[in-house]
Amino acid sequence: MSSSVSNSDRKIVTGSAGYILEDVPHFTDDFPDCPTYPNPLQDNAAYSVVKQYFVDDDDTVPQKIVVHPDSPRGTHFRRAGPRQRVYFESDDVLACIVTCGGLCPGLNTVIREIVCGLSYMYGVKRILGIDGGYRGFYARNTIHLDTNTVNDIHRSGGTILGTSRGGHDTTKIVDSIQDRGINQVYIIGGDGSQKGAAAIFEEIRRRKLKVAVAGIPKTIDNDIPIIDRSFGFDTAVEEAQRAINAAHVEATSFENGIGLVKLMGRYSGFIAMYATLASRDVDCCLIPESPFFLEGPGGLFEFISKRLKESGHMVIVIAEGAGQDLLAESIEESKTLKDASGNKLLQDVGLWISQRIKDHFAKKMTLNLKYIDPTYMIRAVPSNASDNVCCTLLAQSAVHGVMAGYNGFTVGLVNGRHTYIPFYRITEKQNKVVTTDRMWARLLSSTNQPSFMKHDDIDSNQLVGEPGTMKW
Amino acid sequence: MSSSVSNSDRKIVTGSAGYILEDVPHFTDDFPDCPTYPNPLQDNAAYSVVKQYFVDDDDTVPQKIVVHPDSPRGTHFRRAGPRQRVYFESDDVLACIVTCGGLCPGLNTVIREIVCGLSYMYGVKRILGIDGGYRGFYARNTIHLDTNTVNDIHRSGGTILGTSRGGHDTTKIVDSIQDRGINQVYIIGGDGSQKGAAAIFEEIRRRKLKVAVAGIPKTIDNDIPIIDRSFGFDTAVEEAQRAINAAHVEATSFENGIGLVKLMGRYSGFIAMYATLASRDVDCCLIPESPFFLEGPGGLFEFISKRLKESGHMVIVIAEGAGQDLLAESIEESKTLKDASGNKLLQDVGLWISQRIKDHFAKKMTLNLKYIDPTYMIRAVPSNASDNVCCTLLAQSAVHGVMAGYNGFTVGLVNGRHTYIPFYRITEKQNKVVTTDRMWARLLSSTNQPSFMKHDDIDSNQLVGEPGTMKW
Amino acid sequence: MSSSVSNSDRKIVTGSAGYILEDVPHFTDDFPDCPTYPNPLQDNAAYSVVKQYFVDDDDTVPQKIVVHPDSPRGTHFRRAGPRQRVYFESDDVLACIVTCGGLCPGLNTVIREIVCGLSYMYGVKRILGIDGGYRGFYARNTIHLDTNTVNDIHRSGGTILGTSRGGHDTTKIVDSIQDRGINQVYIIGGDGSQKGAAAIFEEIRRRKLKVAVAGIPKTIDNDIPIIDRSFGFDTAVEEAQRAINAAHVEATSFENGIGLVKLMGRYSGFIAMYATLASRDVDCCLIPESPFFLEGPGGLFEFISKRLKESGHMVIVIAEGAGQDLLAESIEESKTLKDASGNKLLQDVGLWISQRIKDHFAKKMTLNLKYIDPTYMIRAVPSNASDNVCCTLLAQSAVHGVMAGYNGFTVGLVNGRHTYIPFYRITEKQNKVVTTDRMWARLLSSTNQPSFMKHDDIDSNQLVGEPGTMKW
Amino acid sequence: MSSSVSNSDRKIVTGSAGYILEDVPHFTDDFPDCPTYPNPLQDNAAYSVVKQYFVDDDDTVPQKIVVHPDSPRGTHFRRAGPRQRVYFESDDVLACIVTCGGLCPGLNTVIREIVCGLSYMYGVKRILGIDGGYRGFYARNTIHLDTNTVNDIHRSGGTILGTSRGGHDTTKIVDSIQDRGINQVYIIGGDGSQKGAAAIFEEIRRRKLKVAVAGIPKTIDNDIPIIDRSFGFDTAVEEAQRAINAAHVEATSFENGIGLVKLMGRYSGFIAMYATLASRDVDCCLIPESPFFLEGPGGLFEFISKRLKESGHMVIVIAEGAGQDLLAESIEESKTLKDASGNKLLQDVGLWISQRIKDHFAKKMTLNLKYIDPTYMIRAVPSNASDNVCCTLLAQSAVHGVMAGYNGFTVGLVNGRHTYIPFYRITEKQNKVVTTDRMWARLLSSTNQPSFMKHDDIDSNQLVGEPGTMKW
Repeated sequence: MSSSVSNSDRKIVTGSAGYILEDVPHFTDDFPDCPTYPNPLQDNAAYSVVKQYFVDDDDTVPQKIVVHPDSPRGTHFRRAGPRQRVYFESDDVLACIVTCGGLCPGLNTVIREIVCGLSYMYGVKRILGIDGGYRGFYARNTIHLDTNTVNDIHRSGGTILGTSRGGHDTTKIVDSIQDRGINQVYIIGGDGSQKGAAAIFEEIRRRKLKVAVAGIPKTIDNDIPIIDRSFGFDTAVEEAQRAINAAHVEATSFENGIGLVKLMGRYSGFIAMYATLASRDVDCCLIPESPFFLEGPGGLFEFISKRLKESGHMVIVIAEGAGQDLLAESIEESKTLKDASGNKLLQDVGLWISQRIKDHFAKKMTLNLKYIDPTYMIRAVPSNASDNVCCTLLAQSAVHGVMAGYNGFTVGLVNGRHTYIPFYRITEKQNKVVTTDRMWARLLSSTNQPSFMKHDDIDSNQLVGEPGTMKW
Repeated sequence: MSSSVSNSDRKIVTGSAGYILEDVPHFTDDFPDCPTYPNPLQDNAAYSVVKQYFVDDDDTVPQKIVVHPDSPRGTHFRRAGPRQRVYFESDDVLACIVTCGGLCPGLNTVIREIVCGLSYMYGVKRILGIDGGYRGFYARNTIHLDTNTVNDIHRSGGTILGTSRGGHDTTKIVDSIQDRGINQVYIIGGDGSQKGAAAIFEEIRRRKLKVAVAGIPKTIDNDIPIIDRSFGFDTAVEEAQRAINAAHVEATSFENGIGLVKLMGRYSGFIAMYATLASRDVDCCLIPESPFFLEGPGGLFEFISKRLKESGHMVIVIAEGAGQDLLAESIEESKTLKDASGNKLLQDVGLWISQRIKDHFAKKMTLNLKYIDPTYMIRAVPSNASDNVCCTLLAQSAVHGVMAGYNGFTVGLVNGRHTYIPFYRITEKQNKVVTTDRMWARLLSSTNQPSFMKHDDIDSNQLVGEPGTMKW
Repeated sequence: MSSSVSNSDRKIVTGSAGYILEDVPHFTDDFPDCPTYPNPLQDNAAYSVVKQYFVDDDDTVPQKIVVHPDSPRGTHFRRAGPRQRVYFESDDVLACIVTCGGLCPGLNTVIREIVCGLSYMYGVKRILGIDGGYRGFYARNTIHLDTNTVNDIHRSGGTILGTSRGGHDTTKIVDSIQDRGINQVYIIGGDGSQKGAAAIFEEIRRRKLKVAVAGIPKTIDNDIPIIDRSFGFDTAVEEAQRAINAAHVEATSFENGIGLVKLMGRYSGFIAMYATLASRDVDCCLIPESPFFLEGPGGLFEFISKRLKESGHMVIVIAEGAGQDLLAESIEESKTLKDASGNKLLQDVGLWISQRIKDHFAKKMTLNLKYIDPTYMIRAVPSNASDNVCCTLLAQSAVHGVMAGYNGFTVGLVNGRHTYIPFYRITEKQNKVVTTDRMWARLLSSTNQPSFMKHDDIDSNQLVGEPGTMKW
Repeated sequence: MSSSVSNSDRKIVTGSAGYILEDVPHFTDDFPDCPTYPNPLQDNAAYSVVKQYFVDDDDTVPQKIVVHPDSPRGTHFRRAGPRQRVYFESDDVLACIVTCGGLCPGLNTVIREIVCGLSYMYGVKRILGIDGGYRGFYARNTIHLDTNTVNDIHRSGGTILGTSRGGHDTTKIVDSIQDRGINQVYIIGGDGSQKGAAAIFEEIRRRKLKVAVAGIPKTIDNDIPIIDRSFGFDTAVEEAQRAINAAHVEATSFENGIGLVKLMGRYSGFIAMYATLASRDVDCCLIPESPFFLEGPGGLFEFISKRLKESGHMVIVIAEGAGQDLLAESIEESKTLKDASGNKLLQDVGLWISQRIKDHFAKKMTLNLKYIDPTYMIRAVPSNASDNVCCTLLAQSAVHGVMAGYNGFTVGLVNGRHTYIPFYRITEKQNKVVTTDRMWARLLSSTNQPSFMKHDDIDSNQLVGEPGTMKW
C-alpha cells in the first residue's frame, strides 16, 4: 500500500494522503540476512503484563501537526522504542560512549542511563567510556563503565567521561573502533559532533563493519532542528533566572540602573527568549536572529533612554551571538579566528555592548550598569527533574534503537514522542528562533521592546516557519 | 470541502482521510450577527513585522500523533491564538478571574498573565478578581486587578485571590455575573471546577447572555485528559525530589532503613511516577492505577524483605490515592465521607501503610521507617521557569480565544500546541497512568519492583491506551 | 601564680581576680612520664611562616562575657588548637570514628575532616569507621576510611557510617577498642552519646589504657549547654524556612487559613525560636520551655480567634516537645514509653494540636488548617557553607586535642572560640531557651503573641540566665 | 570604684584588673538635663514576665577573650539593648533611614526591622526613607515608611530605598536633617559611609542639635574591624559555593581544566577564605593580604603546573583585591583612577590573571581555563535565615541605643554579643585576614597551596594579631 523510494543516502517511504516517512538506516540494508534474537525484555517480569510495550513497526510521528482539514499528511519520523526482535546477542555487545563539546546539564544522566539501559534491559556487560571526547578514541585509555560506577553520577554536573572540542579524525576513530572490537557507538554531542557521527557511520559502512552508531543530540542552545527541545535546555532556562533576578535587583537599587545579562546562544536565541518569557522582569531581549542597531531613531540607545525615563531602571538579556555584525564592524578587524571545534570565535558581546552603552550615556546621564555572565554557572549544574526524565528516555530510546538494528540515527523528541531521525536532517541546518512567528511576538509583547527591524531585514526564508522547537 | 455535523451539544467538523475536528462553541452560534472589530494587536508596533501572528481559522491539532502510513487522521482540536477579528470592544469588556480548589504552583502567574494579556494586548481596563473561589461570586466583594497589583505576584506561591473547595451555585453565580455586568469569565480550577464552568456556560447560554466563559485547567495531579500536562506539574515533580532525597538519606543512614514518601495523586499517579523516574533512587512506586497487595508471595512485604536483604535500605513512593481498596478493607468501615468539593475523603494512606509495614516486621527484624509527607510544601512553592512560560501562554491563549468569540472552552497543550477544547472532553473522564503502556514499563524497569498484578487484574479499558499525557 | 585544685573528677585551676579554669583530663594525669614528639605540623611548609599557629598552653576562654567593671573573671575553658608537642607517633595511631543518634546536617563533613585532619596534618594512616552507632563496636565489621573514600561525602546528608540509637554497652565497647588496638576514639553524638563517651572514658581509665576519647557534640536541637551552637543547627533553621513559607502561602490562600509547622526540639525550642525570628511570618511560636494553655482567656484558642479576625490567617510553629503536659492530660494515659535511646517517646504534638484546634472551631467558623511536618526533610540535607566551616574546625580541634594528649573532652565553640570542655559540663544539664531572657522577649515582640504565662509559672531557676546559646 | 577619663573625643572608663571600657557618646554629655521617659516596653504585655529584659547599665563585653590566668582584662564595649529610661517621646520622633554604597544581602531586612522596631516596640509613627544614598538627603524626596510598606521587603535582595556611592556633603545633609526636623538618623553603610556618619554626628554636635546618629555597618567583605562579622557575609559565603561548584565541574570535565572564581574583597580576603574553607574543592586561594608572585620557583605558575600534573584539574579562588601590585606593574600605568566613592578603581584581577595563566601555558600545554565572576549574583540575593536573624537584632539594637540616648555609635556583634562601638574604632583601620594567624593556616592546610611568602614579606604589624573576625 505504501511504496519506498530510497536514493543512495535517504530512505523515503510514502503513504496515502501525502504521507512521507524519512526513515533511518538499518542493519538489514547492508546485511540482509543478519541473524536476529528475541528481545530479552520479553522475559523481564516487569514487562510481562505490559501489552503495548513493543513498538509497532509502522508507528511514525508527524513533523508538522498544525494542520488543516485537507492538509497533506507530510513528513514523519520513525517512532523510537523496543522491538520484538534484536540484532545483537547480549554477550557479544561491546558498547562505547563518548561525550563531545561544551558542558550541558544532564550529560551524566545520559551516560548513566545508557549504561543502566544496556545492563538492566538487555543484559549487556561490556561498556566502555571514551575519555575526553573524540580524541579519546585514539589518544587515551578507555574507562570501564558499569551500573555501580555510574550509580550516583547524575547528581553532579559536567561529564565523568571528560569532553573536548574538535579532535575528530574519522580514520583514526574507526580504526580504534575496529581494533577494540566495539560494535555499538553512542555519541553525545552537538551539531558538529553529530556531523562527526555521520562521518564515522559512513566510514563504518564503507568498511562493511557491523557496528551501530547512534547520536544523542546535546546542545544547551537548543539549536538542533526537528526536535522539540534538547536535554539540559530546561535546566539552563531555570538557572538563568538567578542571573536575571540579580540583574533586576541591581537595576532597581541604583539610579538609572541597568542589569545586563549575557546568556548562551551563538547562533540561536532560544535560551535568551525562554529565560525572558519565564522571568517577566526583562525589558529587552537581543538574539542573533533579530538584528538590531544602536544609534538613531528606533535604535537600542533610544529605547534605553525611554525606558529609564519611564521606570528608572531596566534589564537587558543578550544572547552571546547577538549583534555580531555590529561587533564585527566595531572592531573593524574581520580576524575570523577559529576555535578548536571550528566555530567562529566570537568576541564577548556582553562586555562590548556594556562599554558601548556606558560610552553613549557617559555625558548624558549617570548610568549604573552591571554586567552578569552566568554562562559557566548555568552549564555546570546537574539536570533538574524534568531534564532527568528527558535524559533517561533519550538514553533508553537510543539503546532500544541500536539493539533493534537501526543505525546512523539521532534520537529526539518530535512533538512529544521519541523518534529516530536520520543524521542529515539534524545537521543540514540549525534551529533558529523564527522572528516572524508567534513565540517571538509573545516575547515582544511581554517586553514591549521595539522590533529593531525594518521590513526588508526579514529573511524571507524564515517566513516559512520551520516547524521547529516548542512552538506552543 | 469539509462538512459540519453539530448535534445539540457538540460541534463536529469532518474532513478528508478521516479528519475530525471537535470544535468549541462560538458567539456566532447564538448571535449570528454580532459585530466584530479589528484585533487591536494589528496596531501594536511589536507585531507589525510578525507576519504569522494571527492564527489561520483552519489551523487544528491532532489528538493522536503516533500514526501508521495509512491511518485515518482522527480527532483534532482548534488551535489557540489571536484572530484577525475580535468580538469585544476593549472599553466594553468587564472581565473576572476566579481560582478554585487546592493550591498548585503557577496560579499567580496565570492570574498575572490574564491581567497583563487583557491590558497590554487588548487594552482592557476593567478586570475583577473573585475572592475565595466560586462562593466569592455571591458571598464576597470583588478585588480590583490591574498590571500594577499583579506585577510581582508570580514570585509567590498560592493565589492572591484566595480559593476554596465547593461553593458552586450556578444560579447565584450567573445572577452575580449578570448583575455586575461581567462579560468575560476566566475560571482556573480542576476537574470539578471545570464541570462548574460548563454549568455556568450552559446557564449563560440559556439566559441568552453575551458572556464568554473560559477555563484554564488546574490540577497538580495532571489528571485532566487530552492535555499534555497541566501547569504546576513540572514544579511539583521537581519539588518532590527534595522529599525523595531526604527519604534516601534517612534510609541509607540506618540499619534496614525505609524512607516512605507520600505524594499527591488521589486518582492518578503521575506525580509519583515522574518523581520516581526523575529521582533514580526509588525502589518501589505505588499508584492508584496499579493495584497491589501486602501479604504473601509477590506482595509488598515480600518485596521489602527482599530489597532490604539485598541492599540494606529502600525508598518507597506512594501516591495518596494508592491502595484505597486495601485501606478500605483495613478500616472495615466504609464511611464514605465527602469533603466540601465532593471528593471522597481519603484517609492518609501514608500513615496507614507505615503502620502496616512496622507491624508486619515488628517481630521479624529491626526496621527504621521514616515517613515524609511533603504535600503542602510542594503545593505552595512558586512555579519554576518552565511552568512560568507554560502559565503565561495558557493565559494568553485563553484571552485570545475569548476575544475572538470562542466560548465554553478550556485551553490546553495538545501535543505541544495550544488548543481550545470543549468542556465535555476534559470533564467526561480522568487522565490516568496507563499501566499497560510504555511509561509505566519504564518505571518498572527503573525500580525493578514487581508489577503486583495478575493478568486478570488488568482493566481491559486501559488497553486502548488513551492518547494521554506525556507519552514520550 | 595560679593554683590547681583537682578533686577526683574535676580539674580546677584558679587565677587572679576570680579566674577559674575548668580543665580537661590529660594523658600526663595518668601517665606522667609518657613520651612526647614534636608536632609534625612544624615541618609543614604551609605553617612555616605562620607564627601564631601553636596555641599557648595558658590560652583560655571565659564562659561569661557580659561583665561589669569589677566582675570576678569566672569560669574559663581551655582553648582548642595544635600544641608544640604531641603524644602519639603518627604510625602508631589507630583511630576510630562513630556516629550515634539521629541525623543532623554536617555529620559527613565532620567524618571527612577528622579523616583529612589526621591524614594531612598528622600523617595518620589507619582510621576505622564504626558501622551503625555504638553497637557497631561489637556487632559489626569496621569500615576502612581514608582521604579518598571521604572526599565527596560532605555533599550528601546523613552519615556514611550509619547510625543508631542506644546499643551502648560500655564493657563490650571497651573490649572491642582494646582488642582492635584502637588508641583514638572520636564519638559524634548527642547528649546521651556524650554520656556514653564519658562512661567509655572512665572504663578506659580504669583499665589504664592509653586511649584518647574525644566527643564532638551533635544535636540538631542545639540543646547542649555551654557551647554557642552545635553543627547543623544553622542549616536546620535555614531549611525550616521552606516549611514556614509553605505554611504562610497555604494560610493566606484560604479563608481563615492556619499553617501549622512542627519543628524539632524535644526538650528545647531553639530551632522553633530561631526559625520564627528568621522568618518574620510566624504569628505564634510554642516551645517546651514556655507552658501554654488552650481554653479560656489568655489561651491559645482565644489568640487564634483574635488573630484570624484581625488578618484572616495565621502561621503557628510548634516545637515537637511543646505542650507535653497538655498532651499527657489529653490522652490521660501516662504510658511513659521509652524509645531505644531512652528518650521519652513523645506523641506527635503537631497532629494532636491540629485536631484540638479543628475540634474547638468546628462549630464556630470554617477553618482551613494545614499541618506540615518537615522534620526528616530538614535533618537529611547536607550542611550549608556556614556549618561546613563549623564542622571542619570542630573536627580539626578534636584531632589537635587528642594528638596533644588531652582526653575525656568535648570540643565546642564558647563565645566564638574553640575550646575543650570536660564531659560532665555538657551532660549535667540541657541547654534550654531562657524564657525570661532577651531572645525570647524579642520573639514575643516579633510575633506579638501572648506569653501564655502567669508569674507563678516561671521557673525561678531560669531567672539566673545560664550564659547559654547565641545570646546576642 | 571605676574612674572615667574622657579626652575630647573618646570616653574611656577604667576598672579593676586592667578593665577598660571604650564608651560611646550620650545625650547627657551635651544636654545634661534633658528629660527622660519610662521605656514603653515596660507596658508591653509580652515583656511583663521577662525579668532580664532591660540591660544593666554596667553590662559590657570584652574585645579580647582568649586570656591567660593573669591577663589584664583589657578593652570592653557597652552592651546593646533596651534601657529602663528613654530620651525620646514616641510622638516626637522623626526618624530617617539611609542605605549607602554597594549592595549586600540583608539591607531590606535591616530597613524592615528598624521600621518594625521603632513602630512596634516604641510606638514611633513618623519614619522616612532617604532615596538613593547620602545625596538623597538634599537631592531627592523622602519615602514614607511604615510597617505595611516594609512587610515583605526582606524577601527581596537589594534595597528598596536605593543606594549610591559618594554624594556625602556634610553641610547639606545636616541642613536637610535640621530643615525636616529629623531627630534620629540610621545610616546603613560601609567603611566610607560610617566615616560620613561620624562627620554628620560631629556637625550635629557642633550645631548643638538634639539628633541621634547611629550606624549599622554594612560590608559584604567583612572588612570592618572589632565586630565578629557583618550582616550578609554568611549569605555571600553560601552563595559563593555555587560559583565554586561550577568551577569544579568545569575543571574536572576538561583536560587540564582550571576553574577560576573571582570573589568580592577589595582590601580583605574574608569571603574568599571562608568560601574556600566551606567548599573543600579549592586548590588555591589568593587574597589581598597574602602577596604572591607568578613566575619562578615557589610561584603560582609552578604550583599550577604541579597540581595539574597531580590531579589533572584545579580550582582557584581569587579575591578582587589580590595581586594588585602585580596588576599595577603589569599595566605599568599607575593611572590611579578614583571611583565616585573615592575607592581606588581596581582593574579586574580575574580577567587579568586568566590571561596571564593562558599566556604562560600557551606553548607548554593545552589548558582549559574557565573564568567565573559571580559578584553581582552574590550581592543581589536576599539574606539567608542566619543573616535575617542577624539583621533583625542589629536593627533592634540600634533602635534601643538611640531611644536610650546613646549617640555617635555603631552597633556590632563582639564575641557574640551586641554592643555599641564608637565610630572611630571601626573607621580607623580595616579588618584584614591575619596571614600569620590560625585561620589562614587552616586554609593553607586545606588547600595545600604554598604560602607564596618569604619571611621578609610578612608585615610585622600583622604579627600582633588584631583580635578580629570569627577567630574560632
